[in-house]
Amino acid sequence: MNIAVIGDSSCSPEEAKLAESVGELLAQRGATIVCGGLGGVMEAVCRGAKSKAGLTVGILPGENSNMANPWVDIPVVTGLGEARNVVVVKSAQAVIAIGGSYGTLSEIAYALKKGIPVIGLNTWSLSRHEREDDSIIKVQSATEAVGKAISLAKRRKNYEIASLRSQ
Amino acid sequence: MNIAVIGDSSCSPEEAKLAESVGELLAQRGATIVCGGLGGVMEAVCRGAKSKAGLTVGILPGENSNMANPWVDIPVVTGLGEARNVVVVKSAQAVIAIGGSYGTLSEIAYALKKGIPVIGLNTWSLSRHEREDDSIIKVQSATEAVGKAISLAKRRKNYEIASLRSQ
Amino acid sequence: MNIAVIGDSSCSPEEAKLAESVGELLAQRGATIVCGGLGGVMEAVCRGAKSKAGLTVGILPGENSNMANPWVDIPVVTGLGEARNVVVVKSAQAVIAIGGSYGTLSEIAYALKKGIPVIGLNTWSLSRHEREDDSIIKVQSATEAVGKAISLAKRRKNYEIASLRSQ
Amino acid sequence: MNIAVIGDSSCSPEEAKLAESVGELLAQRGATIVCGGLGGVMEAVCRGAKSKAGLTVGILPGENSNMANPWVDIPVVTGLGEARNVVVVKSAQAVIAIGGSYGTLSEIAYALKKGIPVIGLNTWSLSRHEREDDSIIKVQSATEAVGKAISLAKRRKNYEIASLRSQ
Repeated sequence: MNIAVIGDSSCSPEEAKLAESVGELLAQRGATIVCGGLGGVMEAVCRGAKSKAGLTVGILPGENSNMANPWVDIPVVTGLGEARNVVVVKSAQAVIAIGGSYGTLSEIAYALKKGIPVIGLNTWSLSRHEREDDSIIKVQSATEAVGKAISLAKRRKNYEIASLRSQ
Repeated sequence: MNIAVIGDSSCSPEEAKLAESVGELLAQRGATIVCGGLGGVMEAVCRGAKSKAGLTVGILPGENSNMANPWVDIPVVTGLGEARNVVVVKSAQAVIAIGGSYGTLSEIAYALKKGIPVIGLNTWSLSRHEREDDSIIKVQSATEAVGKAISLAKRRKNYEIASLRSQ
Repeated sequence: MNIAVIGDSSCSPEEAKLAESVGELLAQRGATIVCGGLGGVMEAVCRGAKSKAGLTVGILPGENSNMANPWVDIPVVTGLGEARNVVVVKSAQAVIAIGGSYGTLSEIAYALKKGIPVIGLNTWSLSRHEREDDSIIKVQSATEAVGKAISLAKRRKNYEIASLRSQ
Repeated sequence: MNIAVIGDSSCSPEEAKLAESVGELLAQRGATIVCGGLGGVMEAVCRGAKSKAGLTVGILPGENSNMANPWVDIPVVTGLGEARNVVVVKSAQAVIAIGGSYGTLSEIAYALKKGIPVIGLNTWSLSRHEREDDSIIKVQSATEAVGKAISLAKRRKNYEIASLRSQ
């Protein structure tokens, strides 16, 4: 099962700590971590995952696999620029957003469009037509984020299998 | 000058009317309309533009140019699925968002990330870390939207030229 | 109808002359020219088309619309790097290849995969499993290239319409 | 180190056997296998790799991770259609082509354009301007293919590191 962890390439020490805990917990639960492969939140989640012998995939925007942070096991080199954000999100059965700026917002939007569950830790809030959109599942801790992500990813996986069969 | 107009492929009659007016006004100002090429807001803006002899470009997600609405002059066929949203936005010097769902939100996010001005008509509101993000320039009418879009697109065009020269 | 003209961003004077003639003839036949938007063959075909009041679309690999050559009417900015080659080809009902290196070869391959006719002027020859692949329609002059391209593009357009209806 | 193995989604029994051997040998040499994730050559190389406890990555064109063949460890879901071919190739330090049709040809072209070594087993032959292009390194056996791929991939890795440092 792939869980995407998204957030900024530069982040606060608190966000980095949170991301590292998320990485540790996901690795302990046996999930493969998918991220954008660069610094900040992406680096922290990979570092956490590797400290617990997890597997990490970095979907890179540029042209060189060595742009990946040192805790990426499998660099995927796209050369697609920001369009790689789509690939990060579509490759996962659930997404955990930690903080984040406009790049993260584009990933949240893609996930919600596709029906992939998004769990948010101190991230964007959305409203439209004067009404709050509560599609992002807001949580307060790394433990809560990972618990929700794993259980929703299982459900998503089953949905994916069913939708393939019905084609 | 290219102005992107973004919004849902199914929309309310009010949004369609708004989009049609935006198309008319942009065509009268000589802007090329770039959109996602499908129905709803995209179709309405193209119809409006063609009624004033404007030029319309539809950046399609699928594989067949005939998926474009009948008012698209130039269908660009990407086969990229939702990743085509990046192309819609990057091809413009300003973006007008009318209503919209998660696809539109991804386009707003990409535009803001790249520094392309976004003018909003009854669209998403964003906040993060408990603070409102006022990057979307909110307006109340088609006239106001087009006026802002044209003047900001000129500034953006100059910025693009300058940033190319300084490379 | 869109015709893609593909070839290198640096080319010989003979190739440039050929591309310019192709652009002139396509414009006179009312086809919209789609290309990669940069120099060499792409620039020459656009220059030719504009000398006969044609319409030119440049699908750019980079992030800045001002990277387009001066004869591109409509710059489409993808930021996708070489993956933009797919978009150039899919947007056309026929492809004319003039000379060209590996980028051009990738475009020829995409077109043949999708069943879009490819007309070649002094371009790649392919063989596999020791047998020549004659899918590229080889011609000797700009006039012949444009004649073939227009007639095959019409057939392709009809096929696209039919395949959409049968869905 | 990532090695891409490319070829058709339907292939002859001989090609499947060859691909399976390539997968076994790559896994024994510790390389991560990157492929397009579907059937035919892609499935055979993954099956071979898993029989020797290798690691396999499938870069999928569609929208559903369950489209991957059963021997893909890490499905990367792009939704990009054929544009995902670029990602398969860019993610590798060397490419082994087995047989293959136009999709494979597009991948060969992208690799050669980017300077990534391509080793060919019964695959395309190229010539242009009446001259053979010998950029594809032709070999006769799985052992030879893997030997060449590993040694050239090491050199490519060093080149990537050097080109990053010189930026």
